[in-house]
Amino acid sequence: MTSGLCRVLALCAVAAIAGADEGMWLFNDPPVKLLREKYGFEPPAGWMGHLQRSSVRFNSGGSGSFVSAGGLVMTNHHVASECIQKLSTEGRDHLTIGFQARSRAEEGKCPDLELNVLAGIDDVTARMQAAVRPGMNPGDAEKARRGVMNTLEKESLDKTGLRSDVVTLYNGGRYHLYRYKKYTDVRLVFAPEKASAFFGGDPDNFEYPRYCLDIAFFRVYEDGRPASIRDFLKWSTGGAGEGELVFVSGHPGRTERMNTVAHLEFIRDRRNPYVLDLLRRREVLLRTFSERSAENARRAQDELFSYQNSRKAYLGMQAGLQHPAVMKKKRADEEALRAKVKMQAAQPDPWGQVEAALKAWETILVDRALLELRHGFDGDLFGIARGLVRLAAETPKPNPERLREYSEAALDSLKQQLFSEAPIYEDFETMKVADSLSMLMEKLGARHELVLKVLAGKSPRERAAELVRGSKLRDVAVRKRLAEGGLKAVETSPDPMIQLALAVDPASRAARKAYEERVEEPLRQAYARLANARFEVYGTALYPDATFTLRLSIGQVKGFQEGGKPVAWATTLGGAYARAQAQGNRDPFVLPPSWVEARGRLKLDTPFNFLSTNDSVGGNSGSPVVNRQGEFVGILFDGTLDSLVWDYIYSEDVARAISVHSAGILEALGTVYRAQALVAELTGAK
Amino acid sequence: MTSGLCRVLALCAVAAIAGADEGMWLFNDPPVKLLREKYGFEPPAGWMGHLQRSSVRFNSGGSGSFVSAGGLVMTNHHVASECIQKLSTEGRDHLTIGFQARSRAEEGKCPDLELNVLAGIDDVTARMQAAVRPGMNPGDAEKARRGVMNTLEKESLDKTGLRSDVVTLYNGGRYHLYRYKKYTDVRLVFAPEKASAFFGGDPDNFEYPRYCLDIAFFRVYEDGRPASIRDFLKWSTGGAGEGELVFVSGHPGRTERMNTVAHLEFIRDRRNPYVLDLLRRREVLLRTFSERSAENARRAQDELFSYQNSRKAYLGMQAGLQHPAVMKKKRADEEALRAKVKMQAAQPDPWGQVEAALKAWETILVDRALLELRHGFDGDLFGIARGLVRLAAETPKPNPERLREYSEAALDSLKQQLFSEAPIYEDFETMKVADSLSMLMEKLGARHELVLKVLAGKSPRERAAELVRGSKLRDVAVRKRLAEGGLKAVETSPDPMIQLALAVDPASRAARKAYEERVEEPLRQAYARLANARFEVYGTALYPDATFTLRLSIGQVKGFQEGGKPVAWATTLGGAYARAQAQGNRDPFVLPPSWVEARGRLKLDTPFNFLSTNDSVGGNSGSPVVNRQGEFVGILFDGTLDSLVWDYIYSEDVARAISVHSAGILEALGTVYRAQALVAELTGAK
Repeated sequence: MTSGLCRVLALCAVAAIAGADEGMWLFNDPPVKLLREKYGFEPPAGWMGHLQRSSVRFNSGGSGSFVSAGGLVMTNHHVASECIQKLSTEGRDHLTIGFQARSRAEEGKCPDLELNVLAGIDDVTARMQAAVRPGMNPGDAEKARRGVMNTLEKESLDKTGLRSDVVTLYNGGRYHLYRYKKYTDVRLVFAPEKASAFFGGDPDNFEYPRYCLDIAFFRVYEDGRPASIRDFLKWSTGGAGEGELVFVSGHPGRTERMNTVAHLEFIRDRRNPYVLDLLRRREVLLRTFSERSAENARRAQDELFSYQNSRKAYLGMQAGLQHPAVMKKKRADEEALRAKVKMQAAQPDPWGQVEAALKAWETILVDRALLELRHGFDGDLFGIARGLVRLAAETPKPNPERLREYSEAALDSLKQQLFSEAPIYEDFETMKVADSLSMLMEKLGARHELVLKVLAGKSPRERAAELVRGSKLRDVAVRKRLAEGGLKAVETSPDPMIQLALAVDPASRAARKAYEERVEEPLRQAYARLANARFEVYGTALYPDATFTLRLSIGQVKGFQEGGKPVAWATTLGGAYARAQAQGNRDPFVLPPSWVEARGRLKLDTPFNFLSTNDSVGGNSGSPVVNRQGEFVGILFDGTLDSLVWDYIYSEDVARAISVHSAGILEALGTVYRAQALVAELTGAK
Repeated sequence: MTSGLCRVLALCAVAAIAGADEGMWLFNDPPVKLLREKYGFEPPAGWMGHLQRSSVRFNSGGSGSFVSAGGLVMTNHHVASECIQKLSTEGRDHLTIGFQARSRAEEGKCPDLELNVLAGIDDVTARMQAAVRPGMNPGDAEKARRGVMNTLEKESLDKTGLRSDVVTLYNGGRYHLYRYKKYTDVRLVFAPEKASAFFGGDPDNFEYPRYCLDIAFFRVYEDGRPASIRDFLKWSTGGAGEGELVFVSGHPGRTERMNTVAHLEFIRDRRNPYVLDLLRRREVLLRTFSERSAENARRAQDELFSYQNSRKAYLGMQAGLQHPAVMKKKRADEEALRAKVKMQAAQPDPWGQVEAALKAWETILVDRALLELRHGFDGDLFGIARGLVRLAAETPKPNPERLREYSEAALDSLKQQLFSEAPIYEDFETMKVADSLSMLMEKLGARHELVLKVLAGKSPRERAAELVRGSKLRDVAVRKRLAEGGLKAVETSPDPMIQLALAVDPASRAARKAYEERVEEPLRQAYARLANARFEVYGTALYPDATFTLRLSIGQVKGFQEGGKPVAWATTLGGAYARAQAQGNRDPFVLPPSWVEARGRLKLDTPFNFLSTNDSVGGNSGSPVVNRQGEFVGILFDGTLDSLVWDYIYSEDVARAISVHSAGILEALGTVYRAQALVAELTGAK
């Protein structure tokens, strides 16, 4: 854990990245030259398109791929877990016992999952840039830009019927319109027990060696029948081999590699500490709730995992930014660019523009987080209440003027969330609301006008109990009636959560407006100029920072050196048993009964988890790993601790992506789970 | 948990506390009148003195009592746990397996435990107040006051040979000199398994019903032989009964009931949020460390418990301060006093003086916590290094000028800590140092001069590894040589921890000085005036806030009403089995094998834990509960969630202290643990 970022980043000696497997490449601008020169590989005609159409985005925050003509979608268990949690009940916890549909009829429909498949990309930079005229004040600029975004998406939706998103690339340097085929009838087919999928739990998370069957299968349906899929990945039964060239096609969520040094310092000194305090607060809260009973633990487990996962990731990212070698490299890069473009003298200096925006950000960081990001109003019910309040307020407005998530093109996806039948538990909800109100009181101050209004003379706990007990929003029919009733229905609703959301909305919108006008828009403008400067100096063969859109990364299956000793490229199925034994079979190192029972029958030397140099971050979870033939050889599920700094800077010295091996998956499915039908569907066997 | 402080405090209806069992009374000023009028009890001659001399203070932070002529001292398991942890090794974890000495020779000597028994009290208010002349600036006043404290203690030590502490009462209204007989050869005799002592773990902590055998026995030695004790508590085999008048004689650590409203708001808005963030940070850190292996868990468990315990306590305290009814009551009390004493017009207004001190405090709160309270420099080694550095710097100074903890009278106790043989584990230590350095960097800023100096161009993790690996201070002989070598030895030491402590010391001393002069001394002066105002208005029959000195509290054995239903005054031994079963025997509701085995033999209806109205807070843990005859009827170990607000305000409507019953203890010792010799020593049987 303390193995030294100096070594990770190879920054002690050489700072050169040339020739590395760095890059999250756009599918409409793949690294053709790099592939040819480093790997002698030229993707055959149709190779990219097929991989693109086989790749799936999980809008809940992850990646996946089609793996059969019958609509089978594979992703990670930890991407699927939100749906698995929602499909579970007090008597039947599918995260613990797993899930296996023995027939199509048994496949479990997720209440609010949307999958996207990228259909096409248009460059809309010109129209986007034209919207903002020089000299416009930031408020007008933000409004104009938002208007064009909403309009472009609506035009595209009307024309193609496809989900259409304008994506900001290079932090503002380019704008592309992404069109997706959308699946909203998504059913759970198979999931192993969490004890196998997340074997080693939090201690082993982001570490290696690993022994996780972090997989799950869904099936997409259309018109009530399994969708017929033309582009899906052929299964490689042999799977990835050491040294092999492999590709990861997925949706990295966010990187901040193009940020200026001042911006990274802001993240290190302001944003990350705030986020980490919040994550730890929530983790402790949910842990203590969980310990009170087995049913509490079941209710909280997926959300608790999510906080723990983020906490460990942020700690790794923060450790990166707190490493002087990282900042030194970033500073050197920035100075090199400054020297080359001589933009310091330009007015306004883009680096200075970024710094000014950060100064503004600092003053509104906490207010925006508490109000607009709802850190002060946790829980599903308030989220639903706000959605209904804003839906009523926004939909009467002309489309260009609406908040982004209430624009015409976004409404369908929004409503799927708003009308989800996912369970909401009163005790769990109350606890979350109470703690977040307590945090609101601490951060804004007990005498703050809004705090007084929100608490209405009660303590956070009393107020939370009253709000949750009094709200009828757990009933989806009530939500639908309010949505249909529009502004009048919402404003006259006696529901206390609706009334709270109404009361908070002006302050929350003000915080959002301040952020959009004083931070987001100035940053866009500054980064657009910095991106152009980079293109000028380094050419246009630069990939943009991650944006939770489809990217291709190239890499090699490869171990690394730790303390002078080699760490092998792959673990085996048998290694899981050894690890459990070495840990005395204590939680979270307890293999589930299915694995204990199957031990004698398993081919223990089958590869299980493996390492590769593929550039990837959170959001890439569930991405297919494919070989030159475009065959599925594994599924990415994690990165090593050393890779967490990839949010800010890539290096492949010791940092690695971690995937489940396609051979290990087949062996486990067939032998541990006796899922013969699934194996046949994957391999095309009869 | 959300049961409503309104009810707890009985503030919704009546605000009167008259006649309640409130009070942490001084042994030299007991509530004679209250006892006579409410309970018709007049302590017989010698009753108070016997109880005083039977009461024991654990300087590690708790209370206890003598329970045999042979030097047997009883306290809570969770007070003893620090010593139990230090006596454990990788193969032998006495927190898990318990501890039972079968002979005197097997009793385990604690490496650094000091016990105190109160021998006498002198009022030194006059000399203390005379030290500070009107018009003195705060710096001179603080220095003068410290000088007199150090001198008074030294005079007393020289005269009596007893440990002597000047105690500030009424936040500055009175000063008393406490003299203690001191025991430093303290050996562990018996401890149950943590699974029984802390049955129900964090979820049940501060809650009720409870089933905890939260006890442990030590024996004090003098000259290598068990001490012969004249004053010890006679064991009541019947124990406490419902409705009975009982007394708690112990050492409540800190209450803040006399604080002004502004001061309580400061605690609510500034101090508690800071402390809670720190506690959660440490809790998550130690939890994740613990999960990595069974041995890690063993190393971290006592410290982890301590953070969790504090976190739950602070959450309860904070919930109290966030309840409008509490602040309303406090405001009303303050306004009543103001109206009566008309001090608002006085110059300087004492309430205004408090506010001014709080303003100063706000600016130095974090700096002082990071540096002087070592939140930025966690771990044993840095603590030892600072101790050695300051010992070398302070001892050459005249006694009145020294920092309080290095004054002549304090040196022995200090050295016992400094030269403790308690184990220090490199990995555990490194992790703690790394995280605290990371916190230092976050809070002070990465470019802060001191941060740059402390990190020396490395990341927090690298620097921590280098410091811990490089330090020789784990060797007690090295510490002793440095202590003997004085300033020169320290300043020329190549030890990196010593060098770090030297480098940090100027800034740390500056933060301390700022706090002492700008916060502590002004608060003392203001509260002295407020105390006198209270004496004037309400008479002198007011108990002072808790100060971790011996206090007497009176109360009744009594259940309470919850949701209209009665909660019985006591649980039974049999209830523990029922609770374990209801929780599916999941951790932390798993009874240890000794209890499972003994079930058939136990008298299951024996009282186990019981409730009483005795005013108490943290520090009271381990206090004996005695009846009118002065017999031991139980040992206090906790308070209900509703009692956590007692830090700021007492009410007995539903809040209760929780104790282990003397009959349940005997039954468990004899039947579960077959500790016949111990039972005989307690009951005086042959």
